[in-house]
Amino acid sequence: MTIWTRSAALLAATAILPSIVSSVSATPQEGEGVAWEITEGLTTEIGPRIAGSDAERRAREWGKAKLEALGFSGVAIEPFKTRAWTRGPEHAQLLAPYTQPLAITALGFSVPTPDAGLKAPLVYFASLDELRAAPDGSLSGKVAFIDHAMRRAQDGSGYGPYGDVRRRGPSLASGKGAAAVVIRSAGTDSHRNPHTGVTVFAKDVKPIPAGAVSNPDADLIARVAKRGKAMEIDLTLLGKPNPDAPSGNVVADLPGRDPSLPMILLACHLDSWDLGTGAIDDASGCGIITAAALAAQKDGRTLRTIRVLWSGNEEMGVGGGGGGHYAAIHGGDRHAVAMESDFGADKVWQFRMDLAAENEPLGAKVEAALWPMGIVYHGGDAEGGADVGAIIAKQNLAVIDLGQDGTHYFDLHHTPDDTLDKVDPAALQQNVEAWTAVLKVIANEPGTIGAVAKD
Amino acid sequence: MTIWTRSAALLAATAILPSIVSSVSATPQEGEGVAWEITEGLTTEIGPRIAGSDAERRAREWGKAKLEALGFSGVAIEPFKTRAWTRGPEHAQLLAPYTQPLAITALGFSVPTPDAGLKAPLVYFASLDELRAAPDGSLSGKVAFIDHAMRRAQDGSGYGPYGDVRRRGPSLASGKGAAAVVIRSAGTDSHRNPHTGVTVFAKDVKPIPAGAVSNPDADLIARVAKRGKAMEIDLTLLGKPNPDAPSGNVVADLPGRDPSLPMILLACHLDSWDLGTGAIDDASGCGIITAAALAAQKDGRTLRTIRVLWSGNEEMGVGGGGGGHYAAIHGGDRHAVAMESDFGADKVWQFRMDLAAENEPLGAKVEAALWPMGIVYHGGDAEGGADVGAIIAKQNLAVIDLGQDGTHYFDLHHTPDDTLDKVDPAALQQNVEAWTAVLKVIANEPGTIGAVAKD
Repeated sequence: MTIWTRSAALLAATAILPSIVSSVSATPQEGEGVAWEITEGLTTEIGPRIAGSDAERRAREWGKAKLEALGFSGVAIEPFKTRAWTRGPEHAQLLAPYTQPLAITALGFSVPTPDAGLKAPLVYFASLDELRAAPDGSLSGKVAFIDHAMRRAQDGSGYGPYGDVRRRGPSLASGKGAAAVVIRSAGTDSHRNPHTGVTVFAKDVKPIPAGAVSNPDADLIARVAKRGKAMEIDLTLLGKPNPDAPSGNVVADLPGRDPSLPMILLACHLDSWDLGTGAIDDASGCGIITAAALAAQKDGRTLRTIRVLWSGNEEMGVGGGGGGHYAAIHGGDRHAVAMESDFGADKVWQFRMDLAAENEPLGAKVEAALWPMGIVYHGGDAEGGADVGAIIAKQNLAVIDLGQDGTHYFDLHHTPDDTLDKVDPAALQQNVEAWTAVLKVIANEPGTIGAVAKD
Repeated sequence: MTIWTRSAALLAATAILPSIVSSVSATPQEGEGVAWEITEGLTTEIGPRIAGSDAERRAREWGKAKLEALGFSGVAIEPFKTRAWTRGPEHAQLLAPYTQPLAITALGFSVPTPDAGLKAPLVYFASLDELRAAPDGSLSGKVAFIDHAMRRAQDGSGYGPYGDVRRRGPSLASGKGAAAVVIRSAGTDSHRNPHTGVTVFAKDVKPIPAGAVSNPDADLIARVAKRGKAMEIDLTLLGKPNPDAPSGNVVADLPGRDPSLPMILLACHLDSWDLGTGAIDDASGCGIITAAALAAQKDGRTLRTIRVLWSGNEEMGVGGGGGGHYAAIHGGDRHAVAMESDFGADKVWQFRMDLAAENEPLGAKVEAALWPMGIVYHGGDAEGGADVGAIIAKQNLAVIDLGQDGTHYFDLHHTPDDTLDKVDPAALQQNVEAWTAVLKVIANEPGTIGAVAKD
């Protein structure tokens, strides 16, 4: 969908904009600056903040106070009701052929097992495809285990196919009659920390209890399955849907010199999964966009208004979270470009753009601003993300994606290990500088900015 | 205590023993051989096997069957009663100034909190020394938190001082009047997996509930403490001493050609902490010594008998575990050298010896056998370990310690992460080869073998 191609425009733009090039500054000291303050503050003073929880409410108030203290205008909490899910006690063990405790966590939208647990045969499937091939009804009274082997990819692209084990696997198992389902975590680490995340039950199947075991536990189940003896599991997952939960967005502006121009929208999400403290997912994203918005106006207001959206319920939103609510109530606001930071805190190494053909000179300026930092243009669609997806679709907005190194992202994603120690302050600051460089270009662009026309 | 010094004897011995040098073979295929089978088998078919548990009993039976199948003679389970400890439900959260769940585990010999938990002020101490400086009685009704910063060391030497936070910290806190104590885990990783292990309450203090939080949780507490606001913890640790628990050793021999010669004793421990599956601590040790004993006799019996001791209750033994029981009932058996493998499965890189002065030629042969593998002689005491310490002391035995690379050992030690995926089959096999090379020398040595005379 994007029309941007590398071209001689890069060199021309570089010559035009030496001030942008020189704005790439040196490595900061450890743990300084606005991005760090926000990441450290949210993880330390709030911690886990699952959508619909009191902690998420406290995070909104924390965010409002922080954004006001930083000098943002019109800081507002915009509450909404959302479909969420609440974790309950959870544990599991293999009962046969060997007794082995399993490190397990429920997936979002799992329904509860009986309080005393569910004891049932455990049936091993090496992949989602192997489960697909199972005869209908063959899993009646049984628990399906779905194995797979998520591979790491610098751009995070493994999350599509392997994430589907989590997103679609439980629904598929239920369709085959399974009483419950356990998957290998969609994650690339080898620690006893299972990865949670939402699953989506299709309309025609019954929701069932669904959990994920850590990779070492999945390895164990695979080794046991290989021995060919009947397996039995004792599964207790008491989490349950929380269908009408309170959530909310925090929205704040840095007004531009020309309020008549459509603004730049920057988004992150304030909610987190509950197992960790949501450092890389996504306190750091809120830190990055907020610090960059301020840095872009450090030497004076930008031409356009820059808005930050700290979204509620991204993790379990599935169409009804903060991004959807923002589009619903801000559909009358005029936006030019939407950007989102929600892929951790490692360094930005590539970018993608969805810009109209007539904005090729603007694209060249963006490329020129990022090129001195070693951040290169990549093909493929610029998509924003869940927090800006609805407003992008509604208004057909231009999008710029600053792509972070995701090599280690799925070691931590949705696990207890998503904690502040995983954020490298220097890499965090590199993000801020990349975002600042882009904002200095796009928020000072006077002309019309648009996306490629969509069908 | 050791008299061994590097000398020209090395070169002489190398010339004498080309067959030993050439016995260093190529890298094995992944996951093959006796050492792997034992490590894989114990972790897969038994799993966690805390001393005194039914799992430890099953491990003994598994071990007896395995050693018999491998062709060992006189395989015997030697039961004993021991002082152990049983884990109970455990969880904790910071209540003030912020609500934060904490990843915690009880230390062995902790006494239980009330079932409903203990809510009390949490007082931060940056180190054991800072706690030592607190006035007597100043912690009455409070919970002490002891921070520190364990550093990694290739030889594992950090475990002395940092392990003391765990071993002595709770006793010290109790002496100051604390109602309970929480420490930073004695570990070098940054995962939400706390490190358990025993603590030792001095005779003159009251045992109190004692737990360890993971490093990221300790980081959090340190950050909160830095803010200077009063902290409060809600602590539930229901584990309790199990003072008269059943345990046992498994002992098995590979008879030598001359039964009149004192034998070679090789030890590991069969029990494990309960959080992981005891892969590196110490299934791999049992795998290494057993595989090496068999390999040393592959081309025919050695001159001396080689005995393997798979010890019970090493982890909580503190003088009354498997090593002590072995010395008590085998004090009449004649041993020449004792060796133990209980420091993981990473490669052997150095060795130490406690050999009598008249055994210098034997030491040279050992050095010559290891030198082609890049394993070098280090000064310092050869000590064996908890499973052989009592018999060494009783009979003043010669000791050879094959020192493994411990750089990553304390990332995993006593955590849920001590699982099979952490064992590199090639490194495991390198251990077997190093042990085999040493055994081929010492188990074929006809003369008297002795230790340095002790005072």
